[in-house]
Amino acid sequence: MTTPANTPLSYEQAGVNYELIDPLKIAAQRAAASTATQLAQHGFSEVPASRGESAYVVDVGPFYLASIVECLGSKAMVADEMALLTGKSWYDGIAQDTIAMAVNDLITVGATPLVVQAYWAAGGSEWFQDADRAQALVAGWKKACEVCGVAWGGGETPALAGIVEAGRIDLAASCTGIINPKSRLSVGDKLDAGDAIVLLASSGIHANGLSLARKLAERLPQGYLTPIEPGLTDLTFGAALLAPTVLYSPVTEALAKAGIQPHYSANITGHGWRKLLRHPKELTYRIHTVPPVTPVLRFMAEQAGHDAREAYSTLNMGAGFALHVAAADAERTVQIAKACGIDAWVAGRVEAGPKRVIIEPIGVSFGDDDLQLR
Amino acid sequence: MTTPANTPLSYEQAGVNYELIDPLKIAAQRAAASTATQLAQHGFSEVPASRGESAYVVDVGPFYLASIVECLGSKAMVADEMALLTGKSWYDGIAQDTIAMAVNDLITVGATPLVVQAYWAAGGSEWFQDADRAQALVAGWKKACEVCGVAWGGGETPALAGIVEAGRIDLAASCTGIINPKSRLSVGDKLDAGDAIVLLASSGIHANGLSLARKLAERLPQGYLTPIEPGLTDLTFGAALLAPTVLYSPVTEALAKAGIQPHYSANITGHGWRKLLRHPKELTYRIHTVPPVTPVLRFMAEQAGHDAREAYSTLNMGAGFALHVAAADAERTVQIAKACGIDAWVAGRVEAGPKRVIIEPIGVSFGDDDLQLR
Repeated sequence: MTTPANTPLSYEQAGVNYELIDPLKIAAQRAAASTATQLAQHGFSEVPASRGESAYVVDVGPFYLASIVECLGSKAMVADEMALLTGKSWYDGIAQDTIAMAVNDLITVGATPLVVQAYWAAGGSEWFQDADRAQALVAGWKKACEVCGVAWGGGETPALAGIVEAGRIDLAASCTGIINPKSRLSVGDKLDAGDAIVLLASSGIHANGLSLARKLAERLPQGYLTPIEPGLTDLTFGAALLAPTVLYSPVTEALAKAGIQPHYSANITGHGWRKLLRHPKELTYRIHTVPPVTPVLRFMAEQAGHDAREAYSTLNMGAGFALHVAAADAERTVQIAKACGIDAWVAGRVEAGPKRVIIEPIGVSFGDDDLQLR
Repeated sequence: MTTPANTPLSYEQAGVNYELIDPLKIAAQRAAASTATQLAQHGFSEVPASRGESAYVVDVGPFYLASIVECLGSKAMVADEMALLTGKSWYDGIAQDTIAMAVNDLITVGATPLVVQAYWAAGGSEWFQDADRAQALVAGWKKACEVCGVAWGGGETPALAGIVEAGRIDLAASCTGIINPKSRLSVGDKLDAGDAIVLLASSGIHANGLSLARKLAERLPQGYLTPIEPGLTDLTFGAALLAPTVLYSPVTEALAKAGIQPHYSANITGHGWRKLLRHPKELTYRIHTVPPVTPVLRFMAEQAGHDAREAYSTLNMGAGFALHVAAADAERTVQIAKACGIDAWVAGRVEAGPKRVIIEPIGVSFGDDDLQLR
């Protein structure tokens, strides 16, 4: 509470220091890449272009195999605080968030998610004593699996006193899928100038930027119970933050059924719209239409004192997923997303030019130096 | 330090209360089972017998797909203490332990592990500042992948301050594999009277029973630096505990190449030799030969005041993996394991009779009531 409310708050100040993590990450990526040769003894090989993408892809002959493990992050801490403030459990939404972290990444490579495994590491056996919370977690997990058409295979529910903080839970999901037919593989080789950029609506913060949100809540006199819109007292900051992440796999599956093959996809998570620069190709992404900013994200940007550039480089700002499709497929892609209940916009186009995102309506652009993910 | 050293110490006293976890686990298992029908829309189906087994199996047509996520548990806490006491990092072994938790479970269903994903959730960005430790984790992870012939696909390295304790790390691994040809599927349908039981040597405690080990260390005047054998001052309790878990997939792959099809397999982890009762079939497992007890496990049983029954029902006691094979294949199975550098014994046989394990050399038996895993 020592930071005055009008002081801008950056992501690093919110407690995540990427510089400390990155050297390990680079060493791990290098070591991981060197193990690809192990697949040869089984008659298989990796899809090298999937290294650096959101899911790892192996060619197993009749189809590709994609797999991933993803962490929820700190969103469960917001649910814990809100449970104290409201007396209800928010873990059904938290379950969906956790699955979304894995599924929304897995589908970027063109995979159909098939199996989800649950990783629920609690700070002690006592965590499971709160039956309402535990049942909400189970019910939310089951429902999200059904929305995504995946089987919940099983998982782990360890009690990790001494590693996980007492009263907390570390949630993650692993997901395995296949890319079938193999022509659905989407690692960017088809991405090119002339493609349309379709953006799919987010429901709010999803599960990225929560460290910042938690810091902001500390500075607000009413904390998580602060209304995010003047006069709208029933939508609090906490409740708005806890809107569950949109599950995008129904859209990608519907596109496949309709014969539309995305040339590339990006799950807009950490790093906000800089994620549009994910693919290494030298291309310009020109955005002519921005989706309406989700109220909770507008509120956060205001409270953090972010200008448009910082807001769009940190948060999803209303767009949770980007699909790059042939221009001729753009309108139909929007219609298919809407038929799945997810708002969508033909938001821009891919052009020849230096690697950058130009968001024309707000006069912001990001260059290659703004995103180093690989 | 309030418990006198001669007071027996049970697993529950060591801090894990299964009664609190189990209701959630049962609700989760029920909900998970109900999602199996989701696979039909993709033209696939689960292998129902894999529910309750150590890995989940889906029939995807040309082969079966197996997947799993597994947690290391609290072994990293021993490595942290030993790093303070010895000035070296033990995380290369910890990496192998984590991968072993996933791989050794995945292979029980007959799968060839193909891809491992890393889940390294640290208590804060600072965890990654200790370069020796971070490099040991990376190097150990890579080496274990190479031993198992798997590709390290990628993973997550979140900094979870507020969820994971400061200075600690929550380690898990997910693993995906295939069962190919489909005849390698091993979920117990071939298990029957007349089968031989082959036990594979463990290297020590592996990664189960660490809560008990940590409690025992608290009661020892020299703690983790206590020699586990009189006169052998250079093998301390801590170092012996940190012997990395044996990776058994080279054995199961070599068996497949030699045309030996295990009728069933059990990874001997928590619940010790009661894991031999894992399969629901009504059969008696008669053990005539017990492997030599690993010194660290003998030391633990002595220090905890366990009789043989309690020791064998909690710890692996020298046997880390059980293979049930046709009697005619038993000796060759032992030879193949030894050729992989893993000691092995034809330890017993499966017989018609009530569901129990009879360990003749030590006069101990376990019945169905002693293990409720499903």
